[in-house]
Amino acid sequence: MLLAALREQVLHANREIARRGLAPHTFGNVSGICRTGPEPLVVIKPSGVDYASLTAADLVVTNLDGKIVEGSLRPSSDLDTHTLLYREFPQIGGVVHTHSEFATAWAQAGRPIPCLGTTHADYFHGPVPVTDPLTAAEVAEAYVRNTGAVIVRRFRSENLDPLAVPGVLVSGHAPFAWGKSAVEAVEIADVLEYIARLAYRSVLLGASESGIPNYVSEHHYQRKHGPKATYGQI
Amino acid sequence: MLLAALREQVLHANREIARRGLAPHTFGNVSGICRTGPEPLVVIKPSGVDYASLTAADLVVTNLDGKIVEGSLRPSSDLDTHTLLYREFPQIGGVVHTHSEFATAWAQAGRPIPCLGTTHADYFHGPVPVTDPLTAAEVAEAYVRNTGAVIVRRFRSENLDPLAVPGVLVSGHAPFAWGKSAVEAVEIADVLEYIARLAYRSVLLGASESGIPNYVSEHHYQRKHGPKATYGQI
Amino acid sequence: MLLAALREQVLHANREIARRGLAPHTFGNVSGICRTGPEPLVVIKPSGVDYASLTAADLVVTNLDGKIVEGSLRPSSDLDTHTLLYREFPQIGGVVHTHSEFATAWAQAGRPIPCLGTTHADYFHGPVPVTDPLTAAEVAEAYVRNTGAVIVRRFRSENLDPLAVPGVLVSGHAPFAWGKSAVEAVEIADVLEYIARLAYRSVLLGASESGIPNYVSEHHYQRKHGPKATYGQI
Amino acid sequence: MLLAALREQVLHANREIARRGLAPHTFGNVSGICRTGPEPLVVIKPSGVDYASLTAADLVVTNLDGKIVEGSLRPSSDLDTHTLLYREFPQIGGVVHTHSEFATAWAQAGRPIPCLGTTHADYFHGPVPVTDPLTAAEVAEAYVRNTGAVIVRRFRSENLDPLAVPGVLVSGHAPFAWGKSAVEAVEIADVLEYIARLAYRSVLLGASESGIPNYVSEHHYQRKHGPKATYGQI
Repeated sequence: MLLAALREQVLHANREIARRGLAPHTFGNVSGICRTGPEPLVVIKPSGVDYASLTAADLVVTNLDGKIVEGSLRPSSDLDTHTLLYREFPQIGGVVHTHSEFATAWAQAGRPIPCLGTTHADYFHGPVPVTDPLTAAEVAEAYVRNTGAVIVRRFRSENLDPLAVPGVLVSGHAPFAWGKSAVEAVEIADVLEYIARLAYRSVLLGASESGIPNYVSEHHYQRKHGPKATYGQI
Repeated sequence: MLLAALREQVLHANREIARRGLAPHTFGNVSGICRTGPEPLVVIKPSGVDYASLTAADLVVTNLDGKIVEGSLRPSSDLDTHTLLYREFPQIGGVVHTHSEFATAWAQAGRPIPCLGTTHADYFHGPVPVTDPLTAAEVAEAYVRNTGAVIVRRFRSENLDPLAVPGVLVSGHAPFAWGKSAVEAVEIADVLEYIARLAYRSVLLGASESGIPNYVSEHHYQRKHGPKATYGQI
Repeated sequence: MLLAALREQVLHANREIARRGLAPHTFGNVSGICRTGPEPLVVIKPSGVDYASLTAADLVVTNLDGKIVEGSLRPSSDLDTHTLLYREFPQIGGVVHTHSEFATAWAQAGRPIPCLGTTHADYFHGPVPVTDPLTAAEVAEAYVRNTGAVIVRRFRSENLDPLAVPGVLVSGHAPFAWGKSAVEAVEIADVLEYIARLAYRSVLLGASESGIPNYVSEHHYQRKHGPKATYGQI
Repeated sequence: MLLAALREQVLHANREIARRGLAPHTFGNVSGICRTGPEPLVVIKPSGVDYASLTAADLVVTNLDGKIVEGSLRPSSDLDTHTLLYREFPQIGGVVHTHSEFATAWAQAGRPIPCLGTTHADYFHGPVPVTDPLTAAEVAEAYVRNTGAVIVRRFRSENLDPLAVPGVLVSGHAPFAWGKSAVEAVEIADVLEYIARLAYRSVLLGASESGIPNYVSEHHYQRKHGPKATYGQI
C-alpha cells in the first residue's frame, strides 16, 4: 500500500474508533504499516489531538525505531508499543489501542476472557490473553516499549499466532488489537469489546470458566479462517 | 403469502434486527416460509451481506432440503438450522437468529431464563429453554443442521409447543426465535432480549429461580393468547 | 381541570413514557383524573395502541367504576388498577404504569428499593415498597383490580402516605407511580427508574441495606417537600 | 478572568454536564470563581432552573460567604458546599457537582474507587476518596456547608492535594469534582464517571482492591502532570 493511501486508511481508522465509542475521551490510537518500501514506515495518530479535527496531514510517519520521517506533531505516546509489535509480529499491518469499556474492565481485573461462545470462537482462537503486569524495572527502563514486550512475552510463552489471536489485554491498562490492516484491526477491536461485554454478563450468570468445548470453538474458527472457510460470499 | 410479498417481508425483517440492535456486526439472519405453493419455499438472507445494502433480489430462495431455487448468492451459513425448524415445527412461518447481547449471555451461561415476571409470561409459556451442547459427533457430522436438531430434541423432551414457547437459547451460542411470520418472529426476538435483560438484573438482585407463581403466569399467558384474550382492540 | 385539558395532558404523558424509554414495546400506560365535575372522570390510554399514533380523541373516559363515558376504543387492560388507586388515594391526580427496566428488575426480585442516597430521599420518604404477590384466589377473582388491592394493602399496613411515597413495585410485575397530576406522575416514574438503577449498582458494590441515616433522608425530604422547602425558585 | 467571561464559561459548563448525561433530571451544578478582583466572586447556577433555558444573565454571583452580589434568582441549594471548597482549596477555580450514575453508585455504597488502571492514574493520584457520613449534629447545624466540611476533613486527614485528587465521593450522596477552571472541572467529572464505570465492572469481575502497583500509577500520573510531562503536543 502506498503511503498516501495508508495515511487515508489510518485517518479513517482513528475516526472509526471514536465513532464506535471505543476511545472515550480520546483514549486510543490506530497505526498502520507500509512494508513495501525500502524501509518499513509506520503511520500513527499524533498525541492528544481530537479525532474530530484530525486530518491526514496531521498523522506522523516514523520508521520501526520510532524515528520521525514525516510530520511536525509529536506521535502518540504509545508509539513504542506499536513499533515493537510491528517488529515482533511481521504478519500484521495495523494496530489499534483503545480503552473500550468492557475489555478494559477485564484488563483491570487481570483476567483473560474465556471463550464462552461461538462469536468469540469466530474471531479468537482460544481465550483473549492477558499480560503479566510490568515489573518496576520495566516501567523505569522504558514503560511504553515494555508494554509491547510483555505482550510479546505472553504470545511467545503460550506459542500463540498473532493472526489467530488478534488482540490482548494489557494487565491494569487496556486492550490492543491488530490485523492485516488498520481497518481490519478496528473491526477486531470492536468485536473484542462485544465479546468482553458478553463474557462479563455470562460470567456474572455463572458461566463456566472452561468455556465451550474445544471441538465447537475449533469448528467455528476453521469455518471462518481455515482453508475450507464457508462463511460469506466466495 | 406470495413469494414476492414474502421477499419484501423477509427483507424488512432482516433490516429490523439490525435497526433494533439485535444483530451486532451482522451476527443474525431472518427467514420466512411460503407453504402455499406446490412445494414449501424458504426465503433467507444471503451470507455475510451487510443489512444496509441488502435488497429483496439478494435474498435466496430454497426448498426445505436447502436446495437453492432462486438467487445467485450463497444463503446464510445458518440455513440448515432454519430448514430443520420449518420441517419439524410446521406451525411456524418465520425464524430469526440473533446474537442479541443479554439473550446470548444466558446462552453462553447455559442457563434457561426463568419466568420472573408478567412480561415474560405474556410471551413465553414457561422458561426460555436452553439446549444441550452439541456432541463432538454432532458437530463433526453436520454442525448447522444439528444445531436445529438439539433445539427440536429439547422441545420434544419437554413436550413444548413451539408457538407457546417461541424461542430457545442454543447453549454456548445464541438465541433463535420464531413465530407465525417473519415479522412476528422479529417482535419475539426483540422481546426475548428485553426479558433476558430484566432477568439478568433480577437474578443479580437475588430473584428466586422458581419465578412467579404458576397461576399468575398462566393467567397472563391465557389473557393474551387464550380463547378469551382481553388484550388490545378486538 | 377541564376534561379537554386533561385529555391533552394524558396524551402528552403517555407519549412521554415512550419517549423517555420507560415503556418498551408499549408496556405502559398513563391516566389522569378530573375530580371537579359532578362525578370523577378518568382519562386513560386505550389498550394496545401505539404511542406514536395515539391522539387525544383515542383516549377513553370512564367513571370510577370503570364504566366507559366517552370513547369507542377499549381502555387499557390495567384500567381497574388505576380506578382502584383513584378511589383509595383521593389525593392523587395521575397514575403511571411502566415496565421500566431497573424498577421492573427490583419488582421481579420482590425486593423493596432501600433509600441509599439523597436523590432517593428527595422523592421518596423511605424505601420504595414492594407488594405481596397476589394469591391464587385474588388472581382468579379479579386480577387487575386486585393488583390495585395489594398496593393499597401495603400502604395501609405500613401506614404510608401516597404523596410521600409516590410509587410502588408490584411483586413479579412492574412499578406504578402517581402524583398530583399525570405529568407529575411521569416525572416520578422517571426518577424511580433512575433510583432503581443507582440502587442496583450500589447493592452490587455492597451498599448496606439499611441505607443512609434517617436524619439525612428526613432532612432531604423536608427541604424539598416540607413547609420550609428551600429547593428551586420560590 | 473577567466576571463576564466567567459567566459565559460557567454557563457553558452547566450545559455541558447536562449534555454529557452527568446531571440527569437537573441533579447537578457548576460554579467558577474569579479571584482577581478586590474580593473573590463565585458564579453559580441558580436553583432548579432547567439547563436548556439557562442564560448567562440567570447565573448568580456571590462572595465567598455566599452573599449575593449580582442576580435576582436564588443560587443553587448547594452553594455553601461550593464556597467552602473555594475557601479551603485556594488553588481551585471551578467546582462541579453531579449525580452521574456510576460515581453516585460508589458514593451510595460508601466505598472509595480503587486505582485499578492507567486511566484512573492519569487523572487521580490514588483512589477517589469517599467522605464520612455527616453526623446528625452536622446535618442539623448546616447541612450544605458541612457537606463541604466532611470533604475537607477527608483531604486534611489523608493529606491529599486537591489538584492531584480533583474529586471526591460524598457518602450516601454523589460526587464533587474540581479543577483550575470550571471547564477543567467538567472534564474531570466526566472522566470520574468513566473511571467509576470501569471500576464497577472490574470489581464485579474480581479485581483486587489493592489496584495496580504504585510504580505504575506513579509513572502515569507523573507523565501527564509531572514536570517532565510527555503527553499531548508541547
